[in-house]
Amino acid sequence: MPDIRVHLDGAPRDLEAPATGTTAYADDRTVVALRVDGELRDLDTQLRDGAHVEGVTIDSPDGLAILRHSTAHVLAQAVQQVNPDAKLGIGPPITDGFYYDFDVETPFTPEDLKALEKAMARIVKEGQTFRRRVVSDDEARAELADEPYKLELIGLKGPGAASAAEGAGAEVGAGELTIYDNVRGAGRETETVVWKDLCRGPHLPSTRLIGNGFSLMRSAAAYWRGSEKNPQLQRVYGTAWPTKDDLRAHLERLAEAERRDHRRLGSELDLFSVPEEIGSGLAVFHPKGSVIRMEMEDYSRRRHVEAGYDFAYTPHITKAHLFETSRHLEWYADGMYPPMQLDAEHHEDGTLKREGQDYYLKPMNCPMHNLVFAARGRSYRELPLRLFEFGTVYRYEKSGVVHGLTRARGFTQDDAHIYCTREQMRDELASLLTFVLDLLRDYGLEEFYLELSTRDPEKSVGDDATWDEATATLRDVATASGLELVDDPGGAAFYGPKISVQARDAIGRSWQLSTIQLDFFEPGLFDLEYTASDGSRQQPVMIHRALFGSIERFFAILLEHYAGAMPPWLAPVQVRAVPVAEPFNAYLADVVAQLRAASVRAELDDGDDRFNKKIRTATTQKIPFVLIAGGEDAEAGAVSFRYRDGTQRNGVPVAEAIAIVTAAIADRVQV
Amino acid sequence: MPDIRVHLDGAPRDLEAPATGTTAYADDRTVVALRVDGELRDLDTQLRDGAHVEGVTIDSPDGLAILRHSTAHVLAQAVQQVNPDAKLGIGPPITDGFYYDFDVETPFTPEDLKALEKAMARIVKEGQTFRRRVVSDDEARAELADEPYKLELIGLKGPGAASAAEGAGAEVGAGELTIYDNVRGAGRETETVVWKDLCRGPHLPSTRLIGNGFSLMRSAAAYWRGSEKNPQLQRVYGTAWPTKDDLRAHLERLAEAERRDHRRLGSELDLFSVPEEIGSGLAVFHPKGSVIRMEMEDYSRRRHVEAGYDFAYTPHITKAHLFETSRHLEWYADGMYPPMQLDAEHHEDGTLKREGQDYYLKPMNCPMHNLVFAARGRSYRELPLRLFEFGTVYRYEKSGVVHGLTRARGFTQDDAHIYCTREQMRDELASLLTFVLDLLRDYGLEEFYLELSTRDPEKSVGDDATWDEATATLRDVATASGLELVDDPGGAAFYGPKISVQARDAIGRSWQLSTIQLDFFEPGLFDLEYTASDGSRQQPVMIHRALFGSIERFFAILLEHYAGAMPPWLAPVQVRAVPVAEPFNAYLADVVAQLRAASVRAELDDGDDRFNKKIRTATTQKIPFVLIAGGEDAEAGAVSFRYRDGTQRNGVPVAEAIAIVTAAIADRVQV
Repeated sequence: MPDIRVHLDGAPRDLEAPATGTTAYADDRTVVALRVDGELRDLDTQLRDGAHVEGVTIDSPDGLAILRHSTAHVLAQAVQQVNPDAKLGIGPPITDGFYYDFDVETPFTPEDLKALEKAMARIVKEGQTFRRRVVSDDEARAELADEPYKLELIGLKGPGAASAAEGAGAEVGAGELTIYDNVRGAGRETETVVWKDLCRGPHLPSTRLIGNGFSLMRSAAAYWRGSEKNPQLQRVYGTAWPTKDDLRAHLERLAEAERRDHRRLGSELDLFSVPEEIGSGLAVFHPKGSVIRMEMEDYSRRRHVEAGYDFAYTPHITKAHLFETSRHLEWYADGMYPPMQLDAEHHEDGTLKREGQDYYLKPMNCPMHNLVFAARGRSYRELPLRLFEFGTVYRYEKSGVVHGLTRARGFTQDDAHIYCTREQMRDELASLLTFVLDLLRDYGLEEFYLELSTRDPEKSVGDDATWDEATATLRDVATASGLELVDDPGGAAFYGPKISVQARDAIGRSWQLSTIQLDFFEPGLFDLEYTASDGSRQQPVMIHRALFGSIERFFAILLEHYAGAMPPWLAPVQVRAVPVAEPFNAYLADVVAQLRAASVRAELDDGDDRFNKKIRTATTQKIPFVLIAGGEDAEAGAVSFRYRDGTQRNGVPVAEAIAIVTAAIADRVQV
Repeated sequence: MPDIRVHLDGAPRDLEAPATGTTAYADDRTVVALRVDGELRDLDTQLRDGAHVEGVTIDSPDGLAILRHSTAHVLAQAVQQVNPDAKLGIGPPITDGFYYDFDVETPFTPEDLKALEKAMARIVKEGQTFRRRVVSDDEARAELADEPYKLELIGLKGPGAASAAEGAGAEVGAGELTIYDNVRGAGRETETVVWKDLCRGPHLPSTRLIGNGFSLMRSAAAYWRGSEKNPQLQRVYGTAWPTKDDLRAHLERLAEAERRDHRRLGSELDLFSVPEEIGSGLAVFHPKGSVIRMEMEDYSRRRHVEAGYDFAYTPHITKAHLFETSRHLEWYADGMYPPMQLDAEHHEDGTLKREGQDYYLKPMNCPMHNLVFAARGRSYRELPLRLFEFGTVYRYEKSGVVHGLTRARGFTQDDAHIYCTREQMRDELASLLTFVLDLLRDYGLEEFYLELSTRDPEKSVGDDATWDEATATLRDVATASGLELVDDPGGAAFYGPKISVQARDAIGRSWQLSTIQLDFFEPGLFDLEYTASDGSRQQPVMIHRALFGSIERFFAILLEHYAGAMPPWLAPVQVRAVPVAEPFNAYLADVVAQLRAASVRAELDDGDDRFNKKIRTATTQKIPFVLIAGGEDAEAGAVSFRYRDGTQRNGVPVAEAIAIVTAAIADRVQV
């Protein structure tokens, strides 16, 4: 007769009491933890009658986080083995890994990290059990009397702790206080608690499950709880994976990402720089980078013309009042550069001649597009009115988050605002989503999913009903696209919900690209209206959309996606002609002239380097087409193609070669 | 036996003493004043032996200024006839006319101006003589005891008066003090001084010479001597010409300029606006204006690609240090918007975390282009390196001078900086001048002259020898162009001399467009260098050049030049199809579709207006091609062209019509 009935991975299952996850999953070794009634728990948690239980496998997102958290504990134990004076900070799992902070006299050296990895491997092999224990505050204080940072965290427990303990990691929460013991020889007479940590858990059942798929990556200084007012600790970063092969694949991905880093490629290929003299996050595009950017812009603009967009040009600065009307100064001032303050001017008699005026750099283009819309009366016949601009905006990002071109302080949005009626809204959004995906595909991206960012009630304007309608409309359109849809609760801008298009690049990373925001509020702030067919005045709905997001950022993403080897239509130099020897310079110069006449960016390498060096140079510069000619080619009126992968196609008649090149450019294909 | 010998208009002439201009030019009634030894004098001035005398005719620039100055006196006399309490300010000649300031109780109404014109006509008919009289300060004070403003001017006479009396007009100078009497019945017994004014002169011999070619234009408030600290006077503006026909032509030119005013056309044709919400001098381009602007930019960019330019993109803001290096903050701060001041940040212990930083909007692009040049080592093989950017700059122009798009605070330069060797400089400048003129001609301008702006030693950096070489080089190149060359002494920027291209528009007005500046200094400020063929490090010469000057300004000039009727390639709507009646909508819709497929901006007017109204609308919108179709056309597979001048060309087969339109666009001709 069974004692309890639980729902195990969706199916009812009768278990003999007392039952734990360990017994329930005795025949499934891949399960390392549980989700019980929605909460993550240790595998050894005792199960109540009627509980809904799901097994967490080590390769699931939850399982990986637990693996990494347990590995962090093993690291901390190893550190205190090596240096018993080291005081513990916090040690949470993070994307792809974990960290742990320590108060130690001297920073960790690379050799220290190697030694720690060995100590960790020993702990892993010991097969220590992670054992959870509920303690009172006083008990915790007594047990952790030597750990000043842990003592501080104990004080943060209790109602509201979740937010008060920001930066306290996985140590304490709003519920009961727990300590995790690391137990050697659990259940045997020799059972010993070798280490312990204040921790919410859950953890793997045993250190043995960590295996050998972990590595310590680097060490860096970090302030206790993220505040410069606090002591500086040493943070050790590590990564952990279910298997050694997984670890190896991760390290290869990192190396590949490093090779593809757009900042590195931008310098190697002479595409752009971020001069210290101008300021952090403010890039200049060099000639070759400018070619890529112009091609990107030109094609985008052409597509927008074809899609029925109108164009606008607006200034980069404005009087403060405009951003008061749009409420950006209320909601977004932190992201803006400080104002340029023009003092008031007075007449001799003290009366005001000109008011003092604050001018701001624009962080967004919408308020100015609203002024274009409002510049004259609008009729329903003009809607949807789609105003497009390559609008450069400036946002004062914190110096810690500025990163090359992907997170810059000055960047150019391929920005449009679509003004339409409520009736047009759904069709407009649907065709917009199709337009977006088609366009991104033309730049060579192929895999997408959508994210729906919904309202944060504390950071938004407007009423529930309007938000609900807008959100439902976006959800319908997103669902109809057939793409995977992920929710992003609270991630919307203050004026409306948004769909964002996430693209996966060549090495599987996701990038947020296009955003489509629905906005029922800003038109009201600007008193925008149109005359409806019945003669009444109506307020348009507004759609904010940027497809690249920012040109600079999209440029960086393409650069990383293609690892710098841009497809011919985007390549700064499309053809490099390399003579086998000097006598063939003239022959190839003529070929180059023909290519140029066909609007191909072609150049002849008539320098003094030897042939092989010239080929290597062209390869390093990732030029899509290298055309070679020697005696045989010249006699036959032909050239030979040397491709980026080293393969070659010989004896192609010049006219055919030109046709191959121009077709590849026109078709926007990769070669 | 002659008493004196003078040089009369270059030729020796013997005259009987005492001789005056009146006697010397007794047989030339067109001469109304003299230039004696380079100084302007009354015609009745007594001539010394050996004097170099030129006759000043009333239609010469000098003669026109004298005519206008004398007319100003007649205006003042008329004002004091009508209102004896009116006190006199100053009354100088200005371009095309004159003004006179009066201290009166109430502003002048348009009716007042009409009445004054009549009173002036009476004074003119009386033939009053202008008679010059030298007075002492005390005499002048006694005679003008009732004119408080004149008394103030008397105090300004003496050494340095020319600058001290700024705003004092033609009243007093550094020399002797003079009063001009208006004399009725001069030389007769009834001779009477009817009015007088403190004045340096010279004047016409008689009011009769003023004739009927004058008109009072308007009245406006003006501060005494231009300072708000002083009383407000009423300024009456007038114009004066040798003949009534000249006056009429002038008024027509004014009306034509008013019809062509780009601010008016910008609003009528819905091209751009300057929203009060953004700020003075900061324009937004509406969709139709944006089409024109994009076409202007595209064509310019294409030409620059063909001419071997490289491209750059740079931010609109920078840390102050960059403009300290370039010395703009030393020489140009007045023209810049105030800084955005980011406060310094400190750690808890008081140590500096981040320095305070001033960011400035860029007023010029050159410093940023220098950073692109300096981003890596440069070889002589790369020179000339021509860096082009449509760079939007911001200059804080005084509110009084801001004027539509021709003098804006934010504008986009078609800016390039050419880095070359000294040896390349002359050829580069010569080919550049050819490139400039060719390009401007493509936009429809035909008449040009050049201006050479040379050094102002008080507002410039660098040494004499370098300035001399740069100036001589520019002069050689300018002279070789065969265009008229006008000097502009002291008009150069602080870093080097410049040639500017002045273009005449369709109604004969001159506009400064392209500027070409030679700069031997800025490369040194930025330590720019290249490796010469001998391996040595050399400093490049820099040429700053903008061909449109600013896109916004050139846009405005073209708009005024074409009176809004842009040539087809620039027109926002190139073809409007107008059916004779509703049944032909479908037929023309197909024609429009064919035109669009040929990249023509074509649209169908399928609205509810009658045919004639639709034609009027197309005319008002200055659309270059209006295609009409009725039954006859539709049956013949043809359309009829209706041109902007009202002429028509009937029954043109559709294919031919499309060819006509696309050829006109491709050839950039006006229709």
